[in-house]
Amino acid sequence: MGTLFGVGVGPGDPELMTVKAQRVIASCPVIVYFAARRSRGNSFAVIDSLIEEHHQLLRLTYPVTTEAVEPTTYEQRMADFYDESAATIADHLESDRDVAVVCEGDPFFYGSYMYIHQRLAGRFPTEVVPGITSVSAASAAAGRPLVSKNETLTILSGVLPPDQLKEAMSGVDAAVVMKVGRNLSAVRDAAQACGLAEGAVYVERASCEEQRVMPLLDTGDVNAPYFSLVLIPGTHITGK
Amino acid sequence: MGTLFGVGVGPGDPELMTVKAQRVIASCPVIVYFAARRSRGNSFAVIDSLIEEHHQLLRLTYPVTTEAVEPTTYEQRMADFYDESAATIADHLESDRDVAVVCEGDPFFYGSYMYIHQRLAGRFPTEVVPGITSVSAASAAAGRPLVSKNETLTILSGVLPPDQLKEAMSGVDAAVVMKVGRNLSAVRDAAQACGLAEGAVYVERASCEEQRVMPLLDTGDVNAPYFSLVLIPGTHITGK
Repeated sequence: MGTLFGVGVGPGDPELMTVKAQRVIASCPVIVYFAARRSRGNSFAVIDSLIEEHHQLLRLTYPVTTEAVEPTTYEQRMADFYDESAATIADHLESDRDVAVVCEGDPFFYGSYMYIHQRLAGRFPTEVVPGITSVSAASAAAGRPLVSKNETLTILSGVLPPDQLKEAMSGVDAAVVMKVGRNLSAVRDAAQACGLAEGAVYVERASCEEQRVMPLLDTGDVNAPYFSLVLIPGTHITGK
Repeated sequence: MGTLFGVGVGPGDPELMTVKAQRVIASCPVIVYFAARRSRGNSFAVIDSLIEEHHQLLRLTYPVTTEAVEPTTYEQRMADFYDESAATIADHLESDRDVAVVCEGDPFFYGSYMYIHQRLAGRFPTEVVPGITSVSAASAAAGRPLVSKNETLTILSGVLPPDQLKEAMSGVDAAVVMKVGRNLSAVRDAAQACGLAEGAVYVERASCEEQRVMPLLDTGDVNAPYFSLVLIPGTHITGK
């Protein structure tokens, strides 16, 4: 029976892969990655240079994106997609082939790997290799300490409805809004309503060549990609 | 003028260092690490095998630990310590020597490096190399997806007073309590009061040889070290 590895490959810069991620990828005969339609896949771009002849590559193409269909249809089509993907991976594991499912960032931090893990962890041995999150990469890119001492850090999704965004951001010590994308103006509004916009930083594609960093209040004209986030650093350390 | 590098070396397993962290450490003539008195220093233990003859090692020994003195005395002595440490590092940078300050986990996520950064970033070029956090390592060790979809993740310090702990944990989707140590029973009480204890996992020294993972409700006899945490995974993905 093969082992299922969930391998975090970090935020985009191949140098931010761990030594362990590289070793596990090198040793697994089957490498699985997710990609949106008409996309190469962010995780594949990170590991591209590690692929050798002995590797069997398996691309899993998301059938839909969040915005394209009704929520209930989306949930069902994604569930079917993960069921089919897990079945394909299970065939390899049953044939004694180790499988590495690579994903951006960290597998258990908003990662697609967890949908495979959920379906297969009861049947096969699994091991997760943690990865650098986009949160850590963005803080480094911005040069801004994120959270210190006894501060609480709140990490939330920008996809939340505006009122829930405001509620979640209200009174935080430090926060990160993930999955900003088309919700950028709602995130900016919520940060302003909560008095947090002044020190907030917008970061796009942290650690990648196309990385952009700017004050949140300067993002009026920005067309944010899905892989962007907003940092609201804690003020304990800066005293601001 | 030298460059100041803040280098995250990850949670403890040397294989969880990034390729970039290894490269930066190899290239810097001066390596700085923090350690408690009578301790080798967790970050030094991680990088030990990377130290070569050309490296100048600078150990910064914390003058006190949180528990030993009154809070105001502690704050002042630590401020003095960071002032002196920053001055020593500044001498190297002014002499054109690059300095790598290594720290466990990620430098901008509850890391001591940020106190050096705060004092020197205005005077010298700086670069931060993000690291794997103990949060990611603990989730991987526990084999439990931490947060998914539109869930909010709350990361808090176990050093908070019991009433603040309860308030911070009340109604969370997913949470991580850092710096558990001697506050383990207060953390367990707060989790129980908030109805979160059932699925919670205690993790000690994630990714290290001495790693321990157990249900929070089984920790009655555990003497938790400072570097332990409690995971309260989100339930969206498991449906629990």
